[in-house]
Amino acid sequence: MIERLAIIGVGLIGGSLARALRAVGEVGEVVGCGRTLPNLERAVALGVIDRYTQDPAAAVIGADMVFVAVPLGAVRETLAAMRDCLLPEAIITDGGSVKGSVVADARAALGEILPRFVPGHPIAGTEKSGVEASFTELYRNRRVILTPLAETEASALDRVTRMWRLCGAEVSLMDVRHHDEVLAATSHLPHMLAFGLVDALARMKENEEIFRYAAGGFRDFTRIASSSPVMWRDICLANREALAEVMQRFSLEMQDLAETIQRADAEHLLEIFARAKSVRDRYSDSAKGDDGARE
Amino acid sequence: MIERLAIIGVGLIGGSLARALRAVGEVGEVVGCGRTLPNLERAVALGVIDRYTQDPAAAVIGADMVFVAVPLGAVRETLAAMRDCLLPEAIITDGGSVKGSVVADARAALGEILPRFVPGHPIAGTEKSGVEASFTELYRNRRVILTPLAETEASALDRVTRMWRLCGAEVSLMDVRHHDEVLAATSHLPHMLAFGLVDALARMKENEEIFRYAAGGFRDFTRIASSSPVMWRDICLANREALAEVMQRFSLEMQDLAETIQRADAEHLLEIFARAKSVRDRYSDSAKGDDGARE
Repeated sequence: MIERLAIIGVGLIGGSLARALRAVGEVGEVVGCGRTLPNLERAVALGVIDRYTQDPAAAVIGADMVFVAVPLGAVRETLAAMRDCLLPEAIITDGGSVKGSVVADARAALGEILPRFVPGHPIAGTEKSGVEASFTELYRNRRVILTPLAETEASALDRVTRMWRLCGAEVSLMDVRHHDEVLAATSHLPHMLAFGLVDALARMKENEEIFRYAAGGFRDFTRIASSSPVMWRDICLANREALAEVMQRFSLEMQDLAETIQRADAEHLLEIFARAKSVRDRYSDSAKGDDGARE
Repeated sequence: MIERLAIIGVGLIGGSLARALRAVGEVGEVVGCGRTLPNLERAVALGVIDRYTQDPAAAVIGADMVFVAVPLGAVRETLAAMRDCLLPEAIITDGGSVKGSVVADARAALGEILPRFVPGHPIAGTEKSGVEASFTELYRNRRVILTPLAETEASALDRVTRMWRLCGAEVSLMDVRHHDEVLAATSHLPHMLAFGLVDALARMKENEEIFRYAAGGFRDFTRIASSSPVMWRDICLANREALAEVMQRFSLEMQDLAETIQRADAEHLLEIFARAKSVRDRYSDSAKGDDGARE
């Protein structure tokens, strides 16, 4: 299906895409591009990519599919660098966690090629980074959101949709702005809470002891605080507006909870916890895959 | 080691203690006591207990070890109800998540028996409840904190310590107040954040869609919001003061984070995330057992 795939950013996301397409025999050559040489060498050794370059412009030469999986802060320069070397029929797509900023970058950097760019976001990942963390099954039964623009060519959208389906993912279409609001609530806010909690505890006097007595719930809860700081810095900056809104909403919720605890309002506490449990249990039942699975 | 063990509250915590002691052949008869008949019948069917009664006073007759694992709001009445039926040599201990309230309850309810009461807290659990969720290995390589009082008999402390070691746990001693502060930070606060997050999202207009696009990180993060609402209502009320303090501290942290995002302070964001990641990674390395294990 893909003759030459260029992966710009060979980490967990890009590496897993290459692995999944290889596993179903739907990709010819895979060219990797990245900043860290040892990671690229490891990617070749693992068989994730066939060869690599550190220049995005060189990486896309002859590629019929280009997947951009760099931190959000590097998207614009990456697209601009590759633009003049793309095949006329090349499709470009990405895996960025915020779509508004990526679309703005694409508009600024791609010019007349914009119709062949399909903004995308696979809702999958782990707290690990680098090609070493990539695996074939990452996208199996996961959702991939594509946020095509008015300008996007139907055939480009179709090819990217098929690519993700070959990886076992379920593809949904969404409006750019709506994507960023939904993800602010379900992904960006939880990451802020996990980073914030670990940081708050780390700054306490007796933090060594505190972490010593943390149990399994805490480990699950804070696992996402092990995610890449650079990636999350960029996500925060790129989705500033939507994130600020859900953080504000959450802070009101916590204020209400704190006041409820202060005034020892047993009934209201039970109501909040019971509502949350019932929603979480329902969500957990309907969620794809094993609830306990690492993704 | 124990001839007759009375488990008051045959759920995840009480049931797992009985299972663990049976597995090493260190308990004779196990008598269960609880409010829900089907749960008690299930406990007999599973072989967790030998027989049951719904009356705490009857349950402790002839028992040389009594383990109280009821919601914190029911501790005082439970201790008061059993008090006059205890053997003179019986040791009483508990598994409550807050120790200040339990100690106050024990002082009020046990009178001259107080020296044979050993306040305790196994740092283990899952989001599940009921005897069905109990398992033999729950306490293996987990920490159990005991918070003995000035009055506590050394021999009582010694027997309870040995009991937990037989279950594979590592026993630590801690001051009551200090226990409640540490647990407020590492367990009670994270539960408030998870309950609060799920509740906040559930109250949003498009909550169905929001949960549909939540990925694995979110599942891990909110798993503890499936915990028992009654248990957590009681924990909040019992540890009100220490919990209020860490909630306040966390809210300042989040305010700082929100302001940092608002002013797009990339450097400070990276600093916060990198510090949190490094602490979380260090903690994860040093934590007992598999980081991915359900507890």
